[in-house]
Amino acid sequence: MYSNVKLHEINAKMESLKLAFNQYQDISLSRRITCMHDIGNRLLKNKDELVKIAMQETHLPAARLLNELKRTVFQLTSYADTCKNGYWMDIRIQIPTEKNKPVIKKMNVPLGPVLVFGAGNFPFAYSTAGGDTACALAAGCSVVVKAHPQHAATSTAVAKIIDEAIKENNMPPHLFMHVHVTDLSLVKILVMHPVIKAVGFTGSYTAGKQIFDWGNSREQPIPVFAEMGSTNPVYILPGKMKESAETYAVELSKSILTDAGQFCTKPGIIVIQNDDYAGTFIKTLQEKINDAIPVSMLNEGIYQNYELKKKLSTDQKEVKKISTTTQSNEPLVGTALLTSITAKEFMANKILRQEVFGPYCLIVLCNDINEMKQVATQMEGQITCTLGATIKEAEQQKELLKILQSTCGRFIFNGVPTGVEVCPAMQHGGPFPATTYSMFTSVGADGIKRFTRPLAFQNVAEELLPDALKEINPLKLWRLVDDQYTK
Amino acid sequence: MYSNVKLHEINAKMESLKLAFNQYQDISLSRRITCMHDIGNRLLKNKDELVKIAMQETHLPAARLLNELKRTVFQLTSYADTCKNGYWMDIRIQIPTEKNKPVIKKMNVPLGPVLVFGAGNFPFAYSTAGGDTACALAAGCSVVVKAHPQHAATSTAVAKIIDEAIKENNMPPHLFMHVHVTDLSLVKILVMHPVIKAVGFTGSYTAGKQIFDWGNSREQPIPVFAEMGSTNPVYILPGKMKESAETYAVELSKSILTDAGQFCTKPGIIVIQNDDYAGTFIKTLQEKINDAIPVSMLNEGIYQNYELKKKLSTDQKEVKKISTTTQSNEPLVGTALLTSITAKEFMANKILRQEVFGPYCLIVLCNDINEMKQVATQMEGQITCTLGATIKEAEQQKELLKILQSTCGRFIFNGVPTGVEVCPAMQHGGPFPATTYSMFTSVGADGIKRFTRPLAFQNVAEELLPDALKEINPLKLWRLVDDQYTK
Repeated sequence: MYSNVKLHEINAKMESLKLAFNQYQDISLSRRITCMHDIGNRLLKNKDELVKIAMQETHLPAARLLNELKRTVFQLTSYADTCKNGYWMDIRIQIPTEKNKPVIKKMNVPLGPVLVFGAGNFPFAYSTAGGDTACALAAGCSVVVKAHPQHAATSTAVAKIIDEAIKENNMPPHLFMHVHVTDLSLVKILVMHPVIKAVGFTGSYTAGKQIFDWGNSREQPIPVFAEMGSTNPVYILPGKMKESAETYAVELSKSILTDAGQFCTKPGIIVIQNDDYAGTFIKTLQEKINDAIPVSMLNEGIYQNYELKKKLSTDQKEVKKISTTTQSNEPLVGTALLTSITAKEFMANKILRQEVFGPYCLIVLCNDINEMKQVATQMEGQITCTLGATIKEAEQQKELLKILQSTCGRFIFNGVPTGVEVCPAMQHGGPFPATTYSMFTSVGADGIKRFTRPLAFQNVAEELLPDALKEINPLKLWRLVDDQYTK
Repeated sequence: MYSNVKLHEINAKMESLKLAFNQYQDISLSRRITCMHDIGNRLLKNKDELVKIAMQETHLPAARLLNELKRTVFQLTSYADTCKNGYWMDIRIQIPTEKNKPVIKKMNVPLGPVLVFGAGNFPFAYSTAGGDTACALAAGCSVVVKAHPQHAATSTAVAKIIDEAIKENNMPPHLFMHVHVTDLSLVKILVMHPVIKAVGFTGSYTAGKQIFDWGNSREQPIPVFAEMGSTNPVYILPGKMKESAETYAVELSKSILTDAGQFCTKPGIIVIQNDDYAGTFIKTLQEKINDAIPVSMLNEGIYQNYELKKKLSTDQKEVKKISTTTQSNEPLVGTALLTSITAKEFMANKILRQEVFGPYCLIVLCNDINEMKQVATQMEGQITCTLGATIKEAEQQKELLKILQSTCGRFIFNGVPTGVEVCPAMQHGGPFPATTYSMFTSVGADGIKRFTRPLAFQNVAEELLPDALKEINPLKLWRLVDDQYTK
């Protein structure tokens, strides 16, 4: 039903993708916006059907899928809308002060055709019409999506809707393409294909790193923006514990358990000091994990991987299981698990720093603030780091804050890492191995920049400039003229 | 005299560099600015001495070196000054519209210690206190410079001045480090060292690509911003030829010959149509190349490389020598050379697309506009592309413009590619193989972004925020608040 793309078809498809990219350059920003809104509207119009298909493939409940679909539409439309003020275009205009110097104008232009990998954990929001596709279309790029095999029907259904919108809006016919590929050697051929100028990926470290390496080994290397996982450590200081051990434990338990912990920002490690209030905190967390309602995981692959990683973690003899959910007869229920370990033991065992994708959390018990800092120093790059603390004690722990901030893309104070707002201020991407390019985000309209590069126009006549750079600023875009931002 | 760094010293040096990076984070932006200005002032104060040393090492004339030194100081001070309005920090502030949503604020923060390779062709402007160092210091990074061996004394003298300024301004003692390394295995150790978070390089493709590959092969890959060369093709349409064959030829000859063509933006290929006016153009260019005053090249390495690459080009049997400078008795004079070839022959021979760094230019003769477009399509990534055309004919050749713009970082209309303005609107960096990251520039204050990454602060109390993100905007930086840029 979802026939795989064949080797002999790839070149022709890529040529179409390239042609569509070239044609897309001639289409106005306002038409770009309209088309993306239309994709969004059509997704909403077909929401019942889409959710139904996704439920058959993923074990996700209707409410979560509907929410995810709405988020997908919000991404598409809000990223499209940023084309109206164009802040991600980084327009700079230099009016020369000396007479014989040229006028130079710069703006971000699209990089070229983009390859997007559908993500296993978000059948809508990070797949076919998801964040990467929305960014690439907003940037002015054509897109080929490799469907995730575990929600291939959902991907196909979404792709059909995009195709309809593209046709209806008279966009280049192959602006968007959708392929099913399971053979790894064909996946490699796609990544290595000279037409492809960037790749967006969300998934495992193993797959992400492989694609990143392929991208770098090309004759013309390309950026592979891979988001590859994060344990999202939460550090809690004694003052905060004293103030709200119980309520914070409840809050964090929700963050661990919601949607069976299948978020890239789920807190997987909680680092605390082993004092009296910590007891209350742990006890509450144990109760909440124990009471957790069994939730089927997204799909077979994610379930198997969760059980495997969980076992790997608990196989380490220092790790103590301290609370778990009762077994369930539902299919693919990865039981929630809370474990603990001393800081010393944690630091001696690299395996425990790995992400366990699902409702799993490891509490690391420190003797004092110094041990906490040692743990923090050892941590690899993360999407998020969270600090639970009173303002006063956080002010006294500037060094810890520095360490945490140096290892993550988003620093959260007294909150939980799940819940990734789609807004311009969001940073979703941290130092390696969380992502391959910490300089870019995959959530929020700044993510559009991943698929652009700056192009300077020197001494170019008005008639030949893109509208974005014309003197009267006909598109009313934000532009840095000398030292001032103006519209 | 310039003792090489030893293997056993590297770890200690790197630890100092890391410590200095951490300490630098606590120092205010205004002190950062003051220190960079002080480095600039001290360079100017010592200009006579510095130029003298550089003349002994490089064969560059005093006037050029003095100009280059002034440019270096302008880079340092103008990049420092952008810390006052901070547009490169890309600050975004999101005030939530719903009550239970957090405040998120984002800004670019420094990436970590940076390794800078001194460039052979710019002993001041792209070496010790050059563009990469200025960007890294402005970003908030500590810097280790690997001196270029062919101007090691100049590099040492500049480093001493930087050290003095750092001491005088009470900056962290090892904020700036300077090492002499000639052993390739030690160079690799520097690039691979976990403390290093980014690399800046300007030089040959072979060296740049090697360093880029090392950076990607690290356990934690890092960006290697390498500028590796460009032929900066100039395309001239018949209307422009008719209008100003002679004057444009004169202008281009200067661009080819100035400073013995030792600029990364020297036009190395001129693509024209073989018509009557082209004859006048070629004749003028021949005369100018023939009359060129012999200029000693920068150093032995550059001279040898020029002669080698020139020979490689002229060894191709289709290439016709059409004008050359008379030999000179001065040392290291790479004689200027103008050659020509038909478009068909040019397209059949990849060797001719290579950069010949020096006063060399190849004229490619096309039969018509279609052949011109074919040549343009074949070209690899470039720092610049130039189009000579009347406005009217350029408007009729939209496809050619698109091809040219898609392969370069800076598009010049009726001008010459040399003369790289240091300003916010400059883009100096093009698609691979011109540079490794076309998304970044190495000239202009946006180059600071190469050494930063975005960090989001979620729900963080005023007291714990960096000044740049505090509510009252005490530093008066440009910030995108919701959809509006404000100060």
